[in-house]
Amino acid sequence: MTTHKYQVIGMTCGHCEMSVREEVSEIVGLKDIQVSAQTGRLIVTSEDGIDDVAVLSAVEDAGYVAVRSR
Amino acid sequence: MTTHKYQVIGMTCGHCEMSVREEVSEIVGLKDIQVSAQTGRLIVTSEDGIDDVAVLSAVEDAGYVAVRSR
Repeated sequence: MTTHKYQVIGMTCGHCEMSVREEVSEIVGLKDIQVSAQTGRLIVTSEDGIDDVAVLSAVEDAGYVAVRSR
Repeated sequence: MTTHKYQVIGMTCGHCEMSVREEVSEIVGLKDIQVSAQTGRLIVTSEDGIDDVAVLSAVEDAGYVAVRSR
């Protein structure tokens, strides 16, 4: 199991969380997505590897900027 | 032409504006709807009268609370 954490900039509400979740959920093979506007945290879990570029690009498609974090 | 102004509580972003606009736009006979998350302002214009109860109820359907203002 692999988990990657990201910090998303600019989410303010549940709609923003939904937008990010929708785009990230289009990535094939993810097992879990947690996203919080309050903390700006995006946590992605997969049985296999996680493609950071795909995740960051999905967040961008939702209209936000993210960076990988610990 | 009639214009009513309302103060909406809790909108934080463009998604919130969209939700409010969508619900309020279902009210028949409105000519213009302006909504700003930044100011919390909702301004509704109609050729005829405006039913405050319908507007406040539409805002509530979008998940927010509003009061009529000047």
